[in-house]
Amino acid sequence: MPTDSFFHQLFGSIADGGRVLIDRQLRGLARQPGRAVTDLCHALLSQRGEASGAALAREVLLAYNDLEPAGRIAFFQHLVDEFGPEPEAIASAAHAYQEEPSTNSLIALARVVEAPRQELFRRLNMAPGGTAALVAMRGMLLEQIAEHPTWRAIDADLLHLFRSWFNRGFLLLERIDWHTPAVVLEKLIHYEAVHAIDGWDDLRRRLAQDRRCFAFFHPALPEEPLIFVEVALVRGVSDRVQPLLDRAAEIIDPAEADTAVFYSISDCQPGLRGISFGNFLIKQVAAELQAELPNLKTFATLSPVPGFRAWLETAPSLEPLRSELIQRLEDEAPASLPDDQELAGRLLPLCAAYLVRGRRDGQLLDPVARFHLRNGARLERINWAADLSPQGLAGSAGIMVNYLYRLDQVERNHEDFVNKGRVVSSRRVDGLVRSLPADMPVVLEDA
Amino acid sequence: MPTDSFFHQLFGSIADGGRVLIDRQLRGLARQPGRAVTDLCHALLSQRGEASGAALAREVLLAYNDLEPAGRIAFFQHLVDEFGPEPEAIASAAHAYQEEPSTNSLIALARVVEAPRQELFRRLNMAPGGTAALVAMRGMLLEQIAEHPTWRAIDADLLHLFRSWFNRGFLLLERIDWHTPAVVLEKLIHYEAVHAIDGWDDLRRRLAQDRRCFAFFHPALPEEPLIFVEVALVRGVSDRVQPLLDRAAEIIDPAEADTAVFYSISDCQPGLRGISFGNFLIKQVAAELQAELPNLKTFATLSPVPGFRAWLETAPSLEPLRSELIQRLEDEAPASLPDDQELAGRLLPLCAAYLVRGRRDGQLLDPVARFHLRNGARLERINWAADLSPQGLAGSAGIMVNYLYRLDQVERNHEDFVNKGRVVSSRRVDGLVRSLPADMPVVLEDA
Amino acid sequence: MPTDSFFHQLFGSIADGGRVLIDRQLRGLARQPGRAVTDLCHALLSQRGEASGAALAREVLLAYNDLEPAGRIAFFQHLVDEFGPEPEAIASAAHAYQEEPSTNSLIALARVVEAPRQELFRRLNMAPGGTAALVAMRGMLLEQIAEHPTWRAIDADLLHLFRSWFNRGFLLLERIDWHTPAVVLEKLIHYEAVHAIDGWDDLRRRLAQDRRCFAFFHPALPEEPLIFVEVALVRGVSDRVQPLLDRAAEIIDPAEADTAVFYSISDCQPGLRGISFGNFLIKQVAAELQAELPNLKTFATLSPVPGFRAWLETAPSLEPLRSELIQRLEDEAPASLPDDQELAGRLLPLCAAYLVRGRRDGQLLDPVARFHLRNGARLERINWAADLSPQGLAGSAGIMVNYLYRLDQVERNHEDFVNKGRVVSSRRVDGLVRSLPADMPVVLEDA
Amino acid sequence: MPTDSFFHQLFGSIADGGRVLIDRQLRGLARQPGRAVTDLCHALLSQRGEASGAALAREVLLAYNDLEPAGRIAFFQHLVDEFGPEPEAIASAAHAYQEEPSTNSLIALARVVEAPRQELFRRLNMAPGGTAALVAMRGMLLEQIAEHPTWRAIDADLLHLFRSWFNRGFLLLERIDWHTPAVVLEKLIHYEAVHAIDGWDDLRRRLAQDRRCFAFFHPALPEEPLIFVEVALVRGVSDRVQPLLDRAAEIIDPAEADTAVFYSISDCQPGLRGISFGNFLIKQVAAELQAELPNLKTFATLSPVPGFRAWLETAPSLEPLRSELIQRLEDEAPASLPDDQELAGRLLPLCAAYLVRGRRDGQLLDPVARFHLRNGARLERINWAADLSPQGLAGSAGIMVNYLYRLDQVERNHEDFVNKGRVVSSRRVDGLVRSLPADMPVVLEDA
Repeated sequence: MPTDSFFHQLFGSIADGGRVLIDRQLRGLARQPGRAVTDLCHALLSQRGEASGAALAREVLLAYNDLEPAGRIAFFQHLVDEFGPEPEAIASAAHAYQEEPSTNSLIALARVVEAPRQELFRRLNMAPGGTAALVAMRGMLLEQIAEHPTWRAIDADLLHLFRSWFNRGFLLLERIDWHTPAVVLEKLIHYEAVHAIDGWDDLRRRLAQDRRCFAFFHPALPEEPLIFVEVALVRGVSDRVQPLLDRAAEIIDPAEADTAVFYSISDCQPGLRGISFGNFLIKQVAAELQAELPNLKTFATLSPVPGFRAWLETAPSLEPLRSELIQRLEDEAPASLPDDQELAGRLLPLCAAYLVRGRRDGQLLDPVARFHLRNGARLERINWAADLSPQGLAGSAGIMVNYLYRLDQVERNHEDFVNKGRVVSSRRVDGLVRSLPADMPVVLEDA
Repeated sequence: MPTDSFFHQLFGSIADGGRVLIDRQLRGLARQPGRAVTDLCHALLSQRGEASGAALAREVLLAYNDLEPAGRIAFFQHLVDEFGPEPEAIASAAHAYQEEPSTNSLIALARVVEAPRQELFRRLNMAPGGTAALVAMRGMLLEQIAEHPTWRAIDADLLHLFRSWFNRGFLLLERIDWHTPAVVLEKLIHYEAVHAIDGWDDLRRRLAQDRRCFAFFHPALPEEPLIFVEVALVRGVSDRVQPLLDRAAEIIDPAEADTAVFYSISDCQPGLRGISFGNFLIKQVAAELQAELPNLKTFATLSPVPGFRAWLETAPSLEPLRSELIQRLEDEAPASLPDDQELAGRLLPLCAAYLVRGRRDGQLLDPVARFHLRNGARLERINWAADLSPQGLAGSAGIMVNYLYRLDQVERNHEDFVNKGRVVSSRRVDGLVRSLPADMPVVLEDA
Repeated sequence: MPTDSFFHQLFGSIADGGRVLIDRQLRGLARQPGRAVTDLCHALLSQRGEASGAALAREVLLAYNDLEPAGRIAFFQHLVDEFGPEPEAIASAAHAYQEEPSTNSLIALARVVEAPRQELFRRLNMAPGGTAALVAMRGMLLEQIAEHPTWRAIDADLLHLFRSWFNRGFLLLERIDWHTPAVVLEKLIHYEAVHAIDGWDDLRRRLAQDRRCFAFFHPALPEEPLIFVEVALVRGVSDRVQPLLDRAAEIIDPAEADTAVFYSISDCQPGLRGISFGNFLIKQVAAELQAELPNLKTFATLSPVPGFRAWLETAPSLEPLRSELIQRLEDEAPASLPDDQELAGRLLPLCAAYLVRGRRDGQLLDPVARFHLRNGARLERINWAADLSPQGLAGSAGIMVNYLYRLDQVERNHEDFVNKGRVVSSRRVDGLVRSLPADMPVVLEDA
Repeated sequence: MPTDSFFHQLFGSIADGGRVLIDRQLRGLARQPGRAVTDLCHALLSQRGEASGAALAREVLLAYNDLEPAGRIAFFQHLVDEFGPEPEAIASAAHAYQEEPSTNSLIALARVVEAPRQELFRRLNMAPGGTAALVAMRGMLLEQIAEHPTWRAIDADLLHLFRSWFNRGFLLLERIDWHTPAVVLEKLIHYEAVHAIDGWDDLRRRLAQDRRCFAFFHPALPEEPLIFVEVALVRGVSDRVQPLLDRAAEIIDPAEADTAVFYSISDCQPGLRGISFGNFLIKQVAAELQAELPNLKTFATLSPVPGFRAWLETAPSLEPLRSELIQRLEDEAPASLPDDQELAGRLLPLCAAYLVRGRRDGQLLDPVARFHLRNGARLERINWAADLSPQGLAGSAGIMVNYLYRLDQVERNHEDFVNKGRVVSSRRVDGLVRSLPADMPVVLEDA
């Protein structure tokens, strides 16, 4: 098969004139940070870009990669200032469209509204490794976007392109196991965001026969997972995470499991923020597992409640109860929490209320709950002393939640949630909420 | 790997309510052709589409595939009428932008200018085989677009998406040879547009060791070439095509060739019309061949002059010469043409003038010349009696042209051609043009 | 991955001394056909072979391939004369073993009994393409072995090696369909031995969705099938072959088939004669199909009776009946045979008797019956007018047989057949046999 | 592709009768260890084995795997007693051959000399995973063979088969790097025999861009390396190993290296002992590297002298020098050794003499020297303080040797070494040997 390296050896040099131009531009770099890269971008959008697109795109990306922080900031600003649409052209096309809203006038308007940046990014994508470079570029952009509000125009263009390029129809679902190349496996260790993987031995247990790991990949980003999910095949829905993470846990025969517990899901690419893959991933993995192991009857998560403790500590409506509970959580040794049913009896209803009724601007407070309920899952069970790790105690007060995915109900649940704001929950969870004092204000819009 | 079939067995049924809706809609099909598909499209763009996207998208495509011609026409019209942007929203956003051309107002304007059709197509793409279905849909659309000018709005949206999805960075170059699956090879036989392939034995010779065939593929369209090129490895630049096509031609050792002759290039997907792959393909194949066979010194085409004879027959400025030449072409037996140097001496200069100076609206008349010159090739040689097939005689008066690709000059040639309108040609070709009578009007803008 | 070509470019030259020797030897070729190759073989077995094994082996095979017929015959004779075991060494080791039949003396005896040829062949196998070359070498050897009885010693050595190398454990079962490379498919066309494949269109029908084709491959012979079987998925056991071969036959949904009919099985490698793959192939394919299509209930063949007509024409015990039947077969138009129930009524019992009782030296006369019955199949049904092709009429009098494979019975049937000589047959077939006159001598040992 | 699991689900049950027999046999296991497995082996060699070969072979291997140590010992003894050749048959065939040493009598003799064990092993190989099981079986056999001299007969049969099955022509050379599946990489960590790999981070450095690792694989043992070699790409031939193993060593551009240093080669399969892969591996890897990196000019090893220190400590002829040197080696801190040129000056000549002249029974004492010299390498340089690890000091007194592979000389060197016993060494090494006192007895046949 074609070697990209050769291709660029041959074309990469660009014709003589171009090379001189580039050198001159790069020498100017010290005086005007980012200017040389910007000039190359202009060239790429010009006629030259048509003849030597891939080679010139590669030059841009190489030069971009060499930029110092100041150069990168300047370059992003150039993208805003020099590659946006023409206001006059928009005004004129908008006027023409308003005069006569025809097919032609609409196409003309759409053309001038699209920033030339988008075509620039499409041409940069032709370089070898172009897609990866653009994803990384957006990752860098997002790191500093808060300080540069005008960069939102760049971000909007990249996001628009990525939503198109990373369409579900182009993604590949792949199982990850011990037969997977090490270069991919080490990325799992790196990207795992929920329950950290402590090296290769830990990873090996998570890929044993009673565990499953699946990831989405994109053909243009080989060996680079976009998102991955870790699943434990168990008997009964897990109510504690430490046994699942225990490296020495007994390995069971998958044919004897009746439940798949999704205990971790991690996005891998900061540059793809805002493009949601999790919903598709969970459902397709459930379908795959169902196909492979008909003995699986239940698909559920074991999820944190990451905002619960912070809410508990700050919600004004919970005083004076709050201070006492916080104090007990801080005083009590983690190992004794499982047996403290009294504390459980006081915190679990509050957690249920937080999950079901806690809202701000009409939106559920808890991000994990939002994600799974929006996917069409059901809030099934709230488990006491389910994650005794420092992280679990600090974020979720040690509590974890099972969200249940019943594939024949996700569509209805999703519509109820999105259209009516209804949180679909089990009777057990409803009972917890109802057990709270009737006069307790649990919809805490102002929390 | 995940079995799509299972995925859809599980999800494909959609929740009960949805199913009933769909059935009801499909039953309505007879009354209002295309209406049921359109309603499914609306559902796909609604909340339901978020929960059951891939499954619902599949339903849409299945229903679309079942449409009768009348239903398809109605459906396309619905796409125009019901999935276009909102004129009021555009007016309002355009006004807001003009008031204050900020990042936010631009993003808002761009959002409303984009037709909801685009999001619809992106969601359809999530279905298994979605990309192929959309490409086929545009193929059908184009067949009848001349009669339905408003469909241009649909076409513009599809073309915009396809330009993004079929970006060069996502294409895979693959060599086609006798080790290629038959399902791909039979597509070559089907799609070959220049020199028809007469069955498997003919194909086999075209894939022998002194021939090369390369195609671009897209990951979402496996076993479906987008474009392919056929190359002969020879000694010296070929000046006649029949020896290259001769099934019984001696097979030479590629290590002894000094020239790669690109003698056929064919687009395969009507639904991707307007997206140019040929420029990239020729150049990358040249680079691949150079890497594999350093003995290759020359890369050239052997191309038809498809508009020459028609031009000859109609160009008013050529009278009275024209009638005589046409007559001779019609009277003479093809087999005796190679020896008719007198006729050659009269037609070749005219052909050269046609290629170099024949224009309409400032654009070169000959489409093949336009393509290669725009790519940065040089018009190198015009060959008499080079294609004696009926097709070659009817279109090109039996003449064929070598366009020369020198990789270190394509950028400069391209810029000269695009910016200055200059046709880069060899001295030999220039001489042919100069041999014409000085008073002959050869720039035939009105031809 | 390693390029064999380079490997040999580097090693292929062999050290200077060796090269000179080889050249000298090759020059001597004209005088003594085959001698140079033989000398290279001696070198390969010497110390030099240890250092430069693969390179030297390659030299031998190249030189062997250049041999003229006379040289090849001489070379084979050298293999007999110069690479056999030492009679004295055998005598001595045999004597030592008889004196004291110990582990050591047995190992010593086995070592001298093995001809050095075997080590020579093992070393030749190290050359790139060595396995293929040796298989081809045996193919050539077998073509002329009848005239050279001493070559049986060579053949015994090659067969011994091949039985080891082509052990079932090393074979790969692969499905052949329209996604298979053309280079493999054209071999099916070439090797099909039962019902000739008439070009690519015919092949395409045989690989449609209601057909299956599987082959065994060996890792050292890529793209080279060893044996393949063709299967039709149908409703009910087929009793005629022409409908299965009909290119225009309707293509059914495999999920609606209840029967897999094995209608053709062909060995591909003359050089592997005597190594039986068919038994394994049929059973594993049955298992594969059962796994893929649980709707399949019956696995049966539709097989010729290749020796029936010849037996009918020559068996003395059948006079005077014989002459009349033969005459009718010759006179009657094939198209009218299906309706000639009277002739069917007379021939089918004879065919049943031929299949069940016709023996020579205790062995069944019909080779196809021997093969399937030995595999453990049951002789299920004898079909009149089942193959009306000239070949089918000439060999089998148009009759074909269904042998039934019931996987839970093949072991018992096989043992009955091998140990007791019992032909396992259906009641229907038994009834045919019993319908013959009681005094008819149907066990025709002397046929 | 065929699922072996299904194949055995279907066939694995064996016919009813067989199953009962097997159960009965297995129940008898307690009374007669190994007897049940042996009986299954007899069945596998009988008619039943022909019909149900793969399934029965699988039963044998499953039962064998369940054997306790005592059962395994008994089973091996049964293989000796019950599956050897028939002495009477050998006597008779040997007699016949001596009477008339014809092709037929030789074939007949060879047939009876071959133990039925070989056919048994060939049939066992048909089971899924059969090859791996047989290799493991021989590994176990070899562990205890010293105590069971008659097992040598089994070993001879297995070795004979493995030599045939693992012929160089069937091996696949594969590069190992960070893209290799973890299941293979962890085997490198496990099998590395020369310089232990200390976990995944250590391994990662050994697979960086200026390192190479290649292994031979066999198609029947996927993901199971047979032997692997580790190579460092460096400038100049390395004279110390610690810098090569340093995890923090700078990573250089392979295009700037001029030398490939083979610093570790490890066999992986105890069950393949006695089958030499190393010679082929080193030479093919050298060829591969040469092809990939034409900048490489030198191919050399950096090898231990594993027997040197033991020889130094025991060789009587070295007294009284010996005791003093040993004492100094023991007293001196490893870190100061590199600067102790005086000690170097005394030990290096002795090491050179040990390597060049130290022999027992005519064979070189040092196994590593034997291996490389036999391969045709040259003893190039002896390096002081080259391996200061405890292992390096204990075995080689810290000394390491560069053996030079010049591909155009290996054949001549090999022949000189094998035929004339000549150690091909550099002038520098020769000088070291000559620097010893003339009266020093350095050929220590009795060492």
